[in-house]
Amino acid sequence: MTHIDDRTLTSSGFYLSQEAPIQSDNPIPTPSSPAPDILRCAYMELVVTDLAASREFYVDVLGLTVTEEDDEVVYLRSLEEFIHHNLVLRKGSVAAVAAFSYRVRTPADLDRAAAFYTELGCRVERRKEGFVKGIGDSVRVEDPLGFPYEFFYEVDHVERLAWRYDLYTPGALVRLDHFNQVTPDVPRAVRHYQDLGFRVTEDIQDSDGVVYAAWMRRKPTVHDTAMTGGDGPRMHHVAFATHEKHNILAICDKLGALRRSDVIERGPGRHGVSNAFYLYLRDPDGHRVEIYTQDYYTGDPDNPVVTWDVHDNQRRDWWGTPVVPSWYTEASLVLDLDGNPQPVVARTDASEMAVTIGADGFSYTRRDNEDTPERKQGEYKLGHQL
Amino acid sequence: MTHIDDRTLTSSGFYLSQEAPIQSDNPIPTPSSPAPDILRCAYMELVVTDLAASREFYVDVLGLTVTEEDDEVVYLRSLEEFIHHNLVLRKGSVAAVAAFSYRVRTPADLDRAAAFYTELGCRVERRKEGFVKGIGDSVRVEDPLGFPYEFFYEVDHVERLAWRYDLYTPGALVRLDHFNQVTPDVPRAVRHYQDLGFRVTEDIQDSDGVVYAAWMRRKPTVHDTAMTGGDGPRMHHVAFATHEKHNILAICDKLGALRRSDVIERGPGRHGVSNAFYLYLRDPDGHRVEIYTQDYYTGDPDNPVVTWDVHDNQRRDWWGTPVVPSWYTEASLVLDLDGNPQPVVARTDASEMAVTIGADGFSYTRRDNEDTPERKQGEYKLGHQL
Amino acid sequence: MTHIDDRTLTSSGFYLSQEAPIQSDNPIPTPSSPAPDILRCAYMELVVTDLAASREFYVDVLGLTVTEEDDEVVYLRSLEEFIHHNLVLRKGSVAAVAAFSYRVRTPADLDRAAAFYTELGCRVERRKEGFVKGIGDSVRVEDPLGFPYEFFYEVDHVERLAWRYDLYTPGALVRLDHFNQVTPDVPRAVRHYQDLGFRVTEDIQDSDGVVYAAWMRRKPTVHDTAMTGGDGPRMHHVAFATHEKHNILAICDKLGALRRSDVIERGPGRHGVSNAFYLYLRDPDGHRVEIYTQDYYTGDPDNPVVTWDVHDNQRRDWWGTPVVPSWYTEASLVLDLDGNPQPVVARTDASEMAVTIGADGFSYTRRDNEDTPERKQGEYKLGHQL
Amino acid sequence: MTHIDDRTLTSSGFYLSQEAPIQSDNPIPTPSSPAPDILRCAYMELVVTDLAASREFYVDVLGLTVTEEDDEVVYLRSLEEFIHHNLVLRKGSVAAVAAFSYRVRTPADLDRAAAFYTELGCRVERRKEGFVKGIGDSVRVEDPLGFPYEFFYEVDHVERLAWRYDLYTPGALVRLDHFNQVTPDVPRAVRHYQDLGFRVTEDIQDSDGVVYAAWMRRKPTVHDTAMTGGDGPRMHHVAFATHEKHNILAICDKLGALRRSDVIERGPGRHGVSNAFYLYLRDPDGHRVEIYTQDYYTGDPDNPVVTWDVHDNQRRDWWGTPVVPSWYTEASLVLDLDGNPQPVVARTDASEMAVTIGADGFSYTRRDNEDTPERKQGEYKLGHQL
Repeated sequence: MTHIDDRTLTSSGFYLSQEAPIQSDNPIPTPSSPAPDILRCAYMELVVTDLAASREFYVDVLGLTVTEEDDEVVYLRSLEEFIHHNLVLRKGSVAAVAAFSYRVRTPADLDRAAAFYTELGCRVERRKEGFVKGIGDSVRVEDPLGFPYEFFYEVDHVERLAWRYDLYTPGALVRLDHFNQVTPDVPRAVRHYQDLGFRVTEDIQDSDGVVYAAWMRRKPTVHDTAMTGGDGPRMHHVAFATHEKHNILAICDKLGALRRSDVIERGPGRHGVSNAFYLYLRDPDGHRVEIYTQDYYTGDPDNPVVTWDVHDNQRRDWWGTPVVPSWYTEASLVLDLDGNPQPVVARTDASEMAVTIGADGFSYTRRDNEDTPERKQGEYKLGHQL
Repeated sequence: MTHIDDRTLTSSGFYLSQEAPIQSDNPIPTPSSPAPDILRCAYMELVVTDLAASREFYVDVLGLTVTEEDDEVVYLRSLEEFIHHNLVLRKGSVAAVAAFSYRVRTPADLDRAAAFYTELGCRVERRKEGFVKGIGDSVRVEDPLGFPYEFFYEVDHVERLAWRYDLYTPGALVRLDHFNQVTPDVPRAVRHYQDLGFRVTEDIQDSDGVVYAAWMRRKPTVHDTAMTGGDGPRMHHVAFATHEKHNILAICDKLGALRRSDVIERGPGRHGVSNAFYLYLRDPDGHRVEIYTQDYYTGDPDNPVVTWDVHDNQRRDWWGTPVVPSWYTEASLVLDLDGNPQPVVARTDASEMAVTIGADGFSYTRRDNEDTPERKQGEYKLGHQL
Repeated sequence: MTHIDDRTLTSSGFYLSQEAPIQSDNPIPTPSSPAPDILRCAYMELVVTDLAASREFYVDVLGLTVTEEDDEVVYLRSLEEFIHHNLVLRKGSVAAVAAFSYRVRTPADLDRAAAFYTELGCRVERRKEGFVKGIGDSVRVEDPLGFPYEFFYEVDHVERLAWRYDLYTPGALVRLDHFNQVTPDVPRAVRHYQDLGFRVTEDIQDSDGVVYAAWMRRKPTVHDTAMTGGDGPRMHHVAFATHEKHNILAICDKLGALRRSDVIERGPGRHGVSNAFYLYLRDPDGHRVEIYTQDYYTGDPDNPVVTWDVHDNQRRDWWGTPVVPSWYTEASLVLDLDGNPQPVVARTDASEMAVTIGADGFSYTRRDNEDTPERKQGEYKLGHQL
Repeated sequence: MTHIDDRTLTSSGFYLSQEAPIQSDNPIPTPSSPAPDILRCAYMELVVTDLAASREFYVDVLGLTVTEEDDEVVYLRSLEEFIHHNLVLRKGSVAAVAAFSYRVRTPADLDRAAAFYTELGCRVERRKEGFVKGIGDSVRVEDPLGFPYEFFYEVDHVERLAWRYDLYTPGALVRLDHFNQVTPDVPRAVRHYQDLGFRVTEDIQDSDGVVYAAWMRRKPTVHDTAMTGGDGPRMHHVAFATHEKHNILAICDKLGALRRSDVIERGPGRHGVSNAFYLYLRDPDGHRVEIYTQDYYTGDPDNPVVTWDVHDNQRRDWWGTPVVPSWYTEASLVLDLDGNPQPVVARTDASEMAVTIGADGFSYTRRDNEDTPERKQGEYKLGHQL
């Protein structure tokens, strides 16, 4: 691990190091079985309590394309996707996540996935016919952190609608970009997902080495999934990409026109982490959806790892806009393979919200004013104080 | 005046009426002298306490073009302007506004301006050679509301740089769009500026008829100036236009890169009032600058007047983002013709901030949920509660 | 008139003069009756031969809003419009323009319009109930140049849909921007429309003083109508505005997706004249429609007049893209008040196409290379030579 | 190979097949040595005849960042790059390409590269200290098609300027996207580069199976390089990416302002192939540079291969804008390892330009009008006929 003193402070205010500067003192064992070769996050299966309301949100408001549907399930995809779906809405009594699903490179990677998790002592279920329509042979597991992970290769191809501009809306969603998971012990989670083949691209730490969040990728973007420190296992959000920033603004404008602006939880804004333009919405069950565009290429093996100081006021919003508390505290339950919610374990490390907002928190815009009164004001700008 | 019961509720949630639905029970007399024919807001003269810091902000950060400058004054213009300047920065000991300056249609309108204000008993000063460089014969007055207003026709022409894309920055400012004035009694101010020839395009009221703000125009946009209810006379902001929304986002991105994101006070966002995309910044003296784009044509005499309910959570931000308190409470002093700050008179009508934010305030996103608990939460979304 | 030697050459390559640098040696008499006070171009009435096909083009492809329709006529408006319509499609046997319609400031301006044209000896027809639905008292004339002009004040108000982002398409049209007329003798036309109250903002000339085109405005944009030199009277195009450039690109993308890209005649591109971003389409009858965004404010009486050299290769397209010949030669017939096509008179002055394209034409990108071989190549770049 | 009859015609007008539908009857042998694991196209080394003029073009006009320079060489990178450079400009007497350089995954891949090409009988040169500054151990080869290919892993890291928005211009280039090579026998080239590990994503064919061009990738975009059928080996273009479409328009606007619009060879427009938005420029030596944005993810091993009919008028420009002849015929020489230009071999297969433009060519916008007169008109629209 790169010691904090060996990291390079950049002209943009964050640090660079060559290896992921995170280590766990309570690691999950590394299996001797090789990890499956994951291509990318592929779809999320969401349990929703009012299927009609959720369908209306994802299809009529956000414009996702229905590949297939019935009274119990709706299969949705983004405009540039050629596999059957990127999102499954399944009717159920408890709003939760049934699967974080990844596509692997070959059918043989399913054997590797099964062996990898079996060695870890995890519950593993394999179905040749798949767990959902459109997907063939699949492995689902309750992973060591309590998340329902799925792996598959076989999938029905559908038409990539990228050229069908007659179907585009002003806020067109073109790709599934990433997942985001809430977990109490971020270093432990990072270490485990590194074993599964993910690489850290960015993280948030403090000067004591507490890790508040980390971003991890397989495809060469900033992430396929991220670890957000908090009570977990829970699902923080699922993110879709647009082509341009105005597409994201158009979603906000449309929500205003529909008098549903209260669906907007945070943003739009520019992330510090990832450098992407973002927006966070809450679906009818409170599942959080990010709309995201324009991060950067990370595919080289020596891609520099970016570390942000948790007290840097621009780490989560480059424009210094405060993060709303609900964004830190609320998240979706995740299910075990029987469909029951996983129990939520409290985070014991320091809370990012606590150290940056309110009476106990502080943050800075510029390093050279760490001792000024501004530092004492907490994350909120003067204008935000009542 | 259109009674509130005669207004039309639109599908967008605001009301329409044909005449400005505002009347004053304490009007300033209407002069018998005809008003000057005002073309547009033309420039603001700002007194700044650190000329180098202000020049750096307006030129290096925001990209305004220097037409002329010396050790005491900097004359700045936007890229599409052909008159000498849109902003004058003058070094002084007290940060304040020395003039809200309007261009009139003919030289003879200066005589009309002088007569109009003389009849009102206002202090009037006329200088053939102008009060600032680049401007000829001018009339300055202390208007009945205490604002330093200027009128001129003669002006030096400079090159309109609209086609000089080699000079554009990502956040290029192309026009001066409007002024915004803080005044305690909005109906009284509206009535007076109607006498001066302005027309109301939009306003914010409550069901008791209290007027919180009004937008008034000469050129056919939503405004050349606006009246914001509050302690006054003060200057709320001066606004420049960009061509597109991404230009405004680029200004935020640049401020982040300069580690000056704390200059961003509010936004970016979409206004309800005006339908424009906006951003509010604070200059080194705290003078507020809006960056603004894409309102609508208002030039027909029967252009419908839009009235927003003060409790409509989308009136000031269409996406429901709360207005920060400083935006309501802070504003710049204005000077009399001797250069001394005008005394500030407190507003006695209800405060928009008080009725919409905090313990005493409420607001709604949808009319049909006025009785739900949401209404009790005040303007801030759940996520914003600490 | 400003002599060509008194014009100022700008750093952008065009000339400035204070008055419109155009005079006619064959002027239409100036009436002693005052001209009506025109606010803006308001709508065009188009005769179309296949109403269903035209409706499909303007509504399903371009996204205009239907205010009202029956088997014979469709009334359409743009998203920011509050009057009944901006475009009337009327079924007929000959594709043509039935009216260029302008809104005037007051009902009394109709009397002025009638007197103005009566004095000119033009055929004048007034209908209290209007010529089309939604419009009241109207005057239609066959103007001295042969164009069917209409004036009205009374009009039904409809909801301005500016805030209805749920109705926006990626290529949303928000305003009617201008008309463009083809006429053989541009100076004669300019002089006449100046009598009617229009002001020249830009024009194209050669060093012999031949005028190829001129842009004229009432509202403070670059134009409400333009005179294009050619066989006339004919209608060159009607133009609608979008908010941003990407909206125009989205229209092209959609036409590609519909496999109707052959509807795109010219562009998208950046105009030299007007500095606007543009696209030209042809509707099912061949009527030309421009999509246009981001010209500049022209409302000051001393707004500098821009004159472009006809040989400047960037005058019509700032990027130097050649104008396609059909754009110069094809245009729509216009009707007299009986609904019969006006005879077309040939232009006798030099043709812009001839002097800039092909064997007899030349143009330059930079003034300093007028004597280089490039000048001999005609308007087309090397790459365009077969 | 998927036979043409087994391909799927999509609703967008192109065909899909699962394997690259290309085979060569004159293949280069497949080495038994494994291919190096290529990450991505990394930089191009260009020989330029006027270093100051080229530096001015790439730095002052296009805004690339100078990492390092001296009197003979300038090293440039894009804003999101963290390796030393993406473009090397080297002063020389003959404008040409000295290297198409790819980054490989590990140092050991250099051994693989050397063995791979040695087995093919190619000239191979390895330099531990690199051929250019900033790059370490490198292998350069004259590949079987005559192109100077380079492979490296070791490279100096420099600061990724992605967050430095204070340095962005309106047309900011953020990534090197791809190369494009001209070669006479496209199937032979495709087969060889498949051996090197590239995968076909799209191609252009006719119904006789003649292949006119093919796009090939390592990173999961549409390409790292493409094969364009023509006299070769030559370099067709090098492409840089922007974030949004308006960035590309801004480059055109700036070139107009600089009176250098004749640098624009083709576009801006929307590609059919790749679905990206594009622009082609020519640098001071005539080297072609593409500016490119928004293609799609291709990283799954079963990513469907898109085949376009050479007669589909929307294949190269989705809006049907004709390709200018110079774009087909002109390209840059490439050098052997001694720095001498490789001889150019003529293409003997049908020419895309000939079959689509001019007397012998035809193309269609819609399949259902293949027998209409439109088909006989060639690629140019009616408007383009003189």
